[in-house]
Amino acid sequence: MVRVAIIGASGYTGAESIRILLRHAEARLTYLTALPEECGPTEEVFPEFRGRCTLPIEPLDMQKLKEQADVVLCCLPHKVSMQFVPELLDAGGKVVDFSADYRLQDVGVYEQFYQVKHTDTTNLKDAAYGLPELFREKVKATRLVANPGCFPTGAVLALAPLLKAGLVETDSIIVNAVTGSSGAGKNPSNKFHFPNMNENAFPYGIGTHRHMPEIEQIAGEVAGSPVQVLFQPHVGPFDRGILSSVYCRPRTKVASDQLWPLYNDFYQAEPFVQIPKTAPGVKDVCGTNYCHIFPALAKGRIVVFSAIDNLVKGASGQAIQNMNILFGLRETMGLD
Amino acid sequence: MVRVAIIGASGYTGAESIRILLRHAEARLTYLTALPEECGPTEEVFPEFRGRCTLPIEPLDMQKLKEQADVVLCCLPHKVSMQFVPELLDAGGKVVDFSADYRLQDVGVYEQFYQVKHTDTTNLKDAAYGLPELFREKVKATRLVANPGCFPTGAVLALAPLLKAGLVETDSIIVNAVTGSSGAGKNPSNKFHFPNMNENAFPYGIGTHRHMPEIEQIAGEVAGSPVQVLFQPHVGPFDRGILSSVYCRPRTKVASDQLWPLYNDFYQAEPFVQIPKTAPGVKDVCGTNYCHIFPALAKGRIVVFSAIDNLVKGASGQAIQNMNILFGLRETMGLD
Amino acid sequence: MVRVAIIGASGYTGAESIRILLRHAEARLTYLTALPEECGPTEEVFPEFRGRCTLPIEPLDMQKLKEQADVVLCCLPHKVSMQFVPELLDAGGKVVDFSADYRLQDVGVYEQFYQVKHTDTTNLKDAAYGLPELFREKVKATRLVANPGCFPTGAVLALAPLLKAGLVETDSIIVNAVTGSSGAGKNPSNKFHFPNMNENAFPYGIGTHRHMPEIEQIAGEVAGSPVQVLFQPHVGPFDRGILSSVYCRPRTKVASDQLWPLYNDFYQAEPFVQIPKTAPGVKDVCGTNYCHIFPALAKGRIVVFSAIDNLVKGASGQAIQNMNILFGLRETMGLD
Amino acid sequence: MVRVAIIGASGYTGAESIRILLRHAEARLTYLTALPEECGPTEEVFPEFRGRCTLPIEPLDMQKLKEQADVVLCCLPHKVSMQFVPELLDAGGKVVDFSADYRLQDVGVYEQFYQVKHTDTTNLKDAAYGLPELFREKVKATRLVANPGCFPTGAVLALAPLLKAGLVETDSIIVNAVTGSSGAGKNPSNKFHFPNMNENAFPYGIGTHRHMPEIEQIAGEVAGSPVQVLFQPHVGPFDRGILSSVYCRPRTKVASDQLWPLYNDFYQAEPFVQIPKTAPGVKDVCGTNYCHIFPALAKGRIVVFSAIDNLVKGASGQAIQNMNILFGLRETMGLD
Repeated sequence: MVRVAIIGASGYTGAESIRILLRHAEARLTYLTALPEECGPTEEVFPEFRGRCTLPIEPLDMQKLKEQADVVLCCLPHKVSMQFVPELLDAGGKVVDFSADYRLQDVGVYEQFYQVKHTDTTNLKDAAYGLPELFREKVKATRLVANPGCFPTGAVLALAPLLKAGLVETDSIIVNAVTGSSGAGKNPSNKFHFPNMNENAFPYGIGTHRHMPEIEQIAGEVAGSPVQVLFQPHVGPFDRGILSSVYCRPRTKVASDQLWPLYNDFYQAEPFVQIPKTAPGVKDVCGTNYCHIFPALAKGRIVVFSAIDNLVKGASGQAIQNMNILFGLRETMGLD
Repeated sequence: MVRVAIIGASGYTGAESIRILLRHAEARLTYLTALPEECGPTEEVFPEFRGRCTLPIEPLDMQKLKEQADVVLCCLPHKVSMQFVPELLDAGGKVVDFSADYRLQDVGVYEQFYQVKHTDTTNLKDAAYGLPELFREKVKATRLVANPGCFPTGAVLALAPLLKAGLVETDSIIVNAVTGSSGAGKNPSNKFHFPNMNENAFPYGIGTHRHMPEIEQIAGEVAGSPVQVLFQPHVGPFDRGILSSVYCRPRTKVASDQLWPLYNDFYQAEPFVQIPKTAPGVKDVCGTNYCHIFPALAKGRIVVFSAIDNLVKGASGQAIQNMNILFGLRETMGLD
Repeated sequence: MVRVAIIGASGYTGAESIRILLRHAEARLTYLTALPEECGPTEEVFPEFRGRCTLPIEPLDMQKLKEQADVVLCCLPHKVSMQFVPELLDAGGKVVDFSADYRLQDVGVYEQFYQVKHTDTTNLKDAAYGLPELFREKVKATRLVANPGCFPTGAVLALAPLLKAGLVETDSIIVNAVTGSSGAGKNPSNKFHFPNMNENAFPYGIGTHRHMPEIEQIAGEVAGSPVQVLFQPHVGPFDRGILSSVYCRPRTKVASDQLWPLYNDFYQAEPFVQIPKTAPGVKDVCGTNYCHIFPALAKGRIVVFSAIDNLVKGASGQAIQNMNILFGLRETMGLD
Repeated sequence: MVRVAIIGASGYTGAESIRILLRHAEARLTYLTALPEECGPTEEVFPEFRGRCTLPIEPLDMQKLKEQADVVLCCLPHKVSMQFVPELLDAGGKVVDFSADYRLQDVGVYEQFYQVKHTDTTNLKDAAYGLPELFREKVKATRLVANPGCFPTGAVLALAPLLKAGLVETDSIIVNAVTGSSGAGKNPSNKFHFPNMNENAFPYGIGTHRHMPEIEQIAGEVAGSPVQVLFQPHVGPFDRGILSSVYCRPRTKVASDQLWPLYNDFYQAEPFVQIPKTAPGVKDVCGTNYCHIFPALAKGRIVVFSAIDNLVKGASGQAIQNMNILFGLRETMGLD
């Protein structure tokens, strides 16, 4: 039985991780932590866990953490994560980190987009980017998984078959995505005040979203050469899900009936990536760790649609998929 | 052309009042004020008014207010209103006050429920409760209208025909209501953070909501004797609208086919109260100043359903209906 | 491993049952059936099951059903169920029936409200009403469970502690409930067309809803004497959940601080009923088999709020809870 | 007073036209028609008009139509419109047609995308494309206005300043749009059944949407040369609004601070087009005839966001704006 701790358990990804782990046959929660002002009985922090989780959410005690957990799901914001991860690894533990701190191998890009100095470049080198469908062997070989961003998960899974096959120009990719509002996190704000967000839809992070360099890095790694991606996120009035619409220019003539088989073959062995015969909606995957992808030809371009649940495949579900790999468990455990 | 000022223009009822007045043929906005930190060009405070309203929202200057306005829509919270209203009335102006400060004639009840001393009992005596369908003559005769609360508007309009006819017991009325989230106002909070409020519905103010004594006072005035009302509000995941389900015990045997004619006759001359042949939904009245009411018999009780838009008939629309009356304009002007 | 068949698998309760059973450690789906026009690969009928359920949904073959299933979840409409259940029981199987056919012990009431002759009164006598919190021993002793209606589940769980304690008048109970739109089933209609239902809320079934006699029967059984309930349902713009607001008149003076302990003690041993310290919202229980209940005093009445997910505790989750009991499994299995 | 008839008044664009006209100072509704099975008192067809519109919706009587209307808002589907329009024009009337029948000047393209023979090419030649911001003079000079499609309105207004200035490549434009669900019309369907559409978002019309050639035609007319547009629509879980995200490749180097002034100057005189300083959301324009546009530079591309209400500026509001022009009224009348 794998003993799991969550630090930063009081946010949406913490709650989703708890939800999944409560159903996991080979893992059990042993320690939950958060900032002091967000601690308390889990069932009071999250009413949905009333009667389901007797563990409290406590202020972090590193000693206790090291003793009680075989693996830590680190649901902290960027910059904070890299203050804790080194000590956890030194103590021999395994870590799945939800922040961006170990995702971008290019420290310069990290420091530019996150406006902070990277303080743990040593462990950064050994971190695996936890998109198992593309980097499973690296995940198996590490003790530190950088759990991917939500948008990069949807975008890169949509792009990978094209990039691997060298079918598309890599200097003109556009990823237009819409996410549910849980992506904004749990802190109230004007934009996400219900009467403002309801019946609304708007773009944000124009030209500046931090997931843009992450998509480019991972896409480039898949392609084997640099990839330029214009990534434009939007928010819509729903809780969960990311729908990515990816626009690519084919390098050579591509026939419409090539695309579905290309994708289906590429992801044949992957339990969590499905290639339906029609375009997906986010509701097809909400509450699941699945990614549904549909490629099409339109006006001479290849347009690929992918749908994930931002809190599951885009965060906590993928983290537990990675955890399963780290411990040699069935990869879908807890995620059925 | 009636010159209208709004003080407290930066909230939802302010915005709704602006929206209506922009279409009003015989009134025009001359002055908008708010707390200093909420001031600015109206089109920046409310993007929906871009290109539609050139007036800025400014910090309140009483002198300017008195000079530029024939009537003030006072969209301030309770306790704050009564600090400004006396001076406005002294200056000879007319006021439609959105707060509770001039609604409850019983100062003791006011002070108990609002936990503050009433500082303007003089004007309180002359204030008219601005539910024109029941108190039109009083509105005509005053310079200070206490614009009704949103829940009392829906509840009292639903109850009035029964109370006037003496058809129901007045010691056992239950008003169960659900409101859209705009009723919570514009300030972000945990409960109304989109990912918390969306797909949710919950009760609040159990046994303590301040609209309970207001409903009882006005219902009692209509009945001609004290009325006991258990009022229980709920919130649902939509922007606007209040659906009230009112449960009454008949005093004597009532036939099912008496009810619709009773209501239809009672409100025959009222432009804004409609008696459809089936139960209303809030969407039937949203964006309008209408109240749709449907009475029925069920299990020996009389159940009355009423639907209003909480920001229109429950606030700004009714205020402008009252303003129209104060100035002898067609009562529906701006509200078509 | 319990082998489970679902007949009528193509509707929302069928889908929810599949979703839960895919995570069940001791049960597995062996046979799914639906009307011929609704058959096909499960992943095409419900895109969310793509890659998760290889079983097809097939037209019903009674022989196959009897051979392949230890228990049948019968997700058929009333009147249809009782055409299949007798044969299944004769073949020695166990049945959890979602319809109303085996819920009302009074055949006259059934025939009046469902406007059809009851054709299986023999098995009706032996059916257990599957609300385990109140009738667990009967469920253990039967092979035919009448799975409760969604509204009765929320209402009766809210009422039971009061009725058992004899604390409230039983001739004047009002249950005001609001349900999410999934309660309407999967067939498109004008009322539930998105642009009509979104941002809307309305009452229905005024004085005539079929769950009213069901609530009365079960509440009466709990009370040990007849109970009169005025039940009024409403629909709101959300997918899942029922919030019931139950109004009762106390028989004797009840103190505010008696209520919470009464409820907490009553449901002490029940995993799925929780008594939080504040009123619940439907989002606290959505996606779970839990019922959250909060009792309060208001204006001299006892008001009890209960929240369930209509598709889980109100249908498929409760069915699987019953199935677990029928087979001596841990009652929460698949429902963690 | 302009006398207005609406044929096809029973759909969403009919209702929106009625709503606007009820507030119009210089126009009044004289005749409403629909298919026989959709006729009835307007307040029964649309409960929101109870007490507001005494005119019934009747089966079409051409004679009556010609006698009672100075202008016809023709809210019919494509192919049906061109069966009625010729007779109306022959009778000397003016027509604002909501269908696609008079929008595409290239009959071949029309016949390919709409799969029907064009039967009124005579009037087609004289029809003006009713986007007043770009074709006001043509609208003034005609008696037949082809009211633009909802998506083309948002897309072309976003593109026009760039195309006029020759700033962007015209062979690689991408328009990614998301519309509210009212765009689907009033007929219930699986996709738009509330429990399916709520909390969902999905693409449709991949490579085949009929608004694609319309955008290309009008954009080409503005540019003065052919324009290739890949148009991809999506639907989101809200009632109203279209958010278009338009991606263009600059022809030459464009500075970030050139864009806002370019747009602001271009639309300086236009009451209904606003250029805010930040990206718009659909809620900023819902219920209004306004289009908010925000241009930006991102990753070397020009990205333009536009927001409209699909039923107002995208349909009925624009039609009445056109009607106002046809009759020499203030263009914003009824649309304040």
